[in-house]
Amino acid sequence: MTIFFAELVGTLLLILLGDGVVANVVLKNSKGHASGWIVITMGWAFAVAIPALIFGSYSNQFNPALTIALAVIGKVAWAKVPIYLAGQFIGAFLGAVLVFVVYYDQFKCSENKTDKLGVFCTVPAVRNSLINFLCEVIGTFVLVFGILGVGAQNLKNGMGAVFVGFLILVIGLSLGGPTGYAINPARDLAPRIAHLVLPIPNKGDSNWSYAWIPIIAPVVGGIIGAVCYMLLL
Amino acid sequence: MTIFFAELVGTLLLILLGDGVVANVVLKNSKGHASGWIVITMGWAFAVAIPALIFGSYSNQFNPALTIALAVIGKVAWAKVPIYLAGQFIGAFLGAVLVFVVYYDQFKCSENKTDKLGVFCTVPAVRNSLINFLCEVIGTFVLVFGILGVGAQNLKNGMGAVFVGFLILVIGLSLGGPTGYAINPARDLAPRIAHLVLPIPNKGDSNWSYAWIPIIAPVVGGIIGAVCYMLLL
Amino acid sequence: MTIFFAELVGTLLLILLGDGVVANVVLKNSKGHASGWIVITMGWAFAVAIPALIFGSYSNQFNPALTIALAVIGKVAWAKVPIYLAGQFIGAFLGAVLVFVVYYDQFKCSENKTDKLGVFCTVPAVRNSLINFLCEVIGTFVLVFGILGVGAQNLKNGMGAVFVGFLILVIGLSLGGPTGYAINPARDLAPRIAHLVLPIPNKGDSNWSYAWIPIIAPVVGGIIGAVCYMLLL
Amino acid sequence: MTIFFAELVGTLLLILLGDGVVANVVLKNSKGHASGWIVITMGWAFAVAIPALIFGSYSNQFNPALTIALAVIGKVAWAKVPIYLAGQFIGAFLGAVLVFVVYYDQFKCSENKTDKLGVFCTVPAVRNSLINFLCEVIGTFVLVFGILGVGAQNLKNGMGAVFVGFLILVIGLSLGGPTGYAINPARDLAPRIAHLVLPIPNKGDSNWSYAWIPIIAPVVGGIIGAVCYMLLL
Repeated sequence: MTIFFAELVGTLLLILLGDGVVANVVLKNSKGHASGWIVITMGWAFAVAIPALIFGSYSNQFNPALTIALAVIGKVAWAKVPIYLAGQFIGAFLGAVLVFVVYYDQFKCSENKTDKLGVFCTVPAVRNSLINFLCEVIGTFVLVFGILGVGAQNLKNGMGAVFVGFLILVIGLSLGGPTGYAINPARDLAPRIAHLVLPIPNKGDSNWSYAWIPIIAPVVGGIIGAVCYMLLL
Repeated sequence: MTIFFAELVGTLLLILLGDGVVANVVLKNSKGHASGWIVITMGWAFAVAIPALIFGSYSNQFNPALTIALAVIGKVAWAKVPIYLAGQFIGAFLGAVLVFVVYYDQFKCSENKTDKLGVFCTVPAVRNSLINFLCEVIGTFVLVFGILGVGAQNLKNGMGAVFVGFLILVIGLSLGGPTGYAINPARDLAPRIAHLVLPIPNKGDSNWSYAWIPIIAPVVGGIIGAVCYMLLL
Repeated sequence: MTIFFAELVGTLLLILLGDGVVANVVLKNSKGHASGWIVITMGWAFAVAIPALIFGSYSNQFNPALTIALAVIGKVAWAKVPIYLAGQFIGAFLGAVLVFVVYYDQFKCSENKTDKLGVFCTVPAVRNSLINFLCEVIGTFVLVFGILGVGAQNLKNGMGAVFVGFLILVIGLSLGGPTGYAINPARDLAPRIAHLVLPIPNKGDSNWSYAWIPIIAPVVGGIIGAVCYMLLL
Repeated sequence: MTIFFAELVGTLLLILLGDGVVANVVLKNSKGHASGWIVITMGWAFAVAIPALIFGSYSNQFNPALTIALAVIGKVAWAKVPIYLAGQFIGAFLGAVLVFVVYYDQFKCSENKTDKLGVFCTVPAVRNSLINFLCEVIGTFVLVFGILGVGAQNLKNGMGAVFVGFLILVIGLSLGGPTGYAINPARDLAPRIAHLVLPIPNKGDSNWSYAWIPIIAPVVGGIIGAVCYMLLL
């Protein structure tokens, strides 16, 4: 399996399971409606951990912020970065389309337009560009610093994927409150495009004025995390 | 221990613990009443992981959709498929009977007939044959694709069962909202028959018009998952 | 460390952490008040898993039903059974005393006498001797069958304790609804005695008419589980 | 990486993620607002487990009570204790500052002054110096006894960090109700100083009359835990 395909299928599963858990919790007439932050954060944690395990021997970055940060510190060739990113964005878009299929009736039953948008991409709890930006920088800093730190342990037997899942979990639990922890440009932008183009019943706008923050801030935070890791450890 | 007995006892435990957690959450006068989706999904996750570990050296499929998918890709002999399925359906039926015993007083105290049916088998949040079918196809696709992907890692020391538990967990958290994630024909049909024949106080009908979806869709999704896995990885 | 001391200290920790989580959830003016079944079941799971790991090289049964079941199938010498049980009951009593110290102010603030009793020992959701008895038999059957099954995998690196924790978790999630899953005579009787003798503010009676069920039923269920395991696997 | 830097960066991450989860749950207009004790305790558990893994080959104590207890039993040189403590307190202060940045808007939106203080440091549910002190002693006893017990198993492949996370989890679930489980002087004092000096909108006082308990009691409990461990095991 090529890098492109591994990134595409892995990111598709990531978004299917990640956006899926948000749909389950925020949309009406769903079995998990209003089941809380623990459900959302556990869902995202294992939405990452399972593909990270399965595609580990091919390619398992699933996140342009991580790919670019690794390129900055020389662990991914810049020439291959477009291949990674193409797979990630296409996979994320397709995953979001599948979430729309699975939760089609729940989208029909729900009135709140912000909730419907929130299934696809992040919506800040309080809009404040500087703080929202810093929040995504810090979250992605922890993500990339943590992934490099976990990777350096050379964990065998699937334990690396377990710890990456725990890392995603704790970032969501602890730093996800203000912005909903995009920490991944593909996770936010591609499903936002899906929200734009899909025939979602009674949808609102796709909040493009916010869209640059979960694209730029994770890249900045990821680079800082990778450089700090190289300097410190 | 023969395949038949391993599948029977393992599926019995799976349904005892899986239907048991639903009873605990949905029925009245139970300690876990209304404790939410995280309880249901964690219960099902370890209802699978524990028997998967214990019966690993005998047989641990516990799911006709998985068995048939494995037969399609040549990993289970077709001649043995009836043995697997017989164990799975009988075990699932017996597990459902035990849940009725354990939660007998709670069945007596609860009025809601849909809740009582929901202990045994899946009830869609919104009835829509096409979408319900696709939802179960996609859920079982992820299940079988994921099990093959986890299995390919040759995890030792019980970590395979851990990841299968995480896989069940995230399928429930993320894709379980619309239909309650049957993703297993034996898990749905055999307890539905138990619901039909058991003397449950003040029960309603067993919703046979829906029963074909959680039988057929998981088989379809499982086969697609297995074939995709063979083509891609 | 002798068997007696390992059982005593391990069971002390088990009850301190297990009864502690119940106190946190059911008593008023506690940070975890009304935080639900997931908190209680996760608390008990790791209340078992941590001592099971730490005392693994000395003795880590912490449960008379397990000890007696292991004696019945010849894995514990009958002559040593009193030593195990003495450590278990004394440890469980001391653990319950510490819970009273830690939650002293919360006991003072709470009015509900059943809640106060429920911190120490199990109180059935619906009183029905036959069903309560069967529920504890089935829960302890799963416990002992599961522990033998996990043990047979020879898991290294702490994974045995992880799976025992998962087993306790799923028993609580799935089978704990009707009786509160004593599944251990020392866990129920010794704290009940503590409830009787401790100067708990405004306490009620210790519900001795129910006390025989969580003593006898776990022993019966444990023996059935051990014998079934030996016959089947 | 020196001990000082490892303790500083590790404790910074610990407090960023630990105080962060409290902010997410208690402050208004946060995605995790009112999501309960399971979120707080899971957040703290992996706030410890992730740095414990990453910095394991450098230094990963992150807790003066642990460092002093290890010095008492001869496992840390007394001459190095000030280095550990300096890193821990500075890191904890910086982590608290970052939490203030990430949750700045949520601090602005929340009125309750006790909630704002509770993000930074522990606030007892019921003020009772003797019982609060004993509660922190017992919690830290379990922490240090447990860490030594887990450490003695020589767990490989990251499992030591997993069990330390489970240990933090169960201490929070079971013993955190009365005082909020500081069990670490740096975790409580340094963020309390941050609360004092940071320009938090509409903040109250920093409750200095309570501050000595989560400093002294964890040191006492840790020493007792370490000494008991050496005597018993």
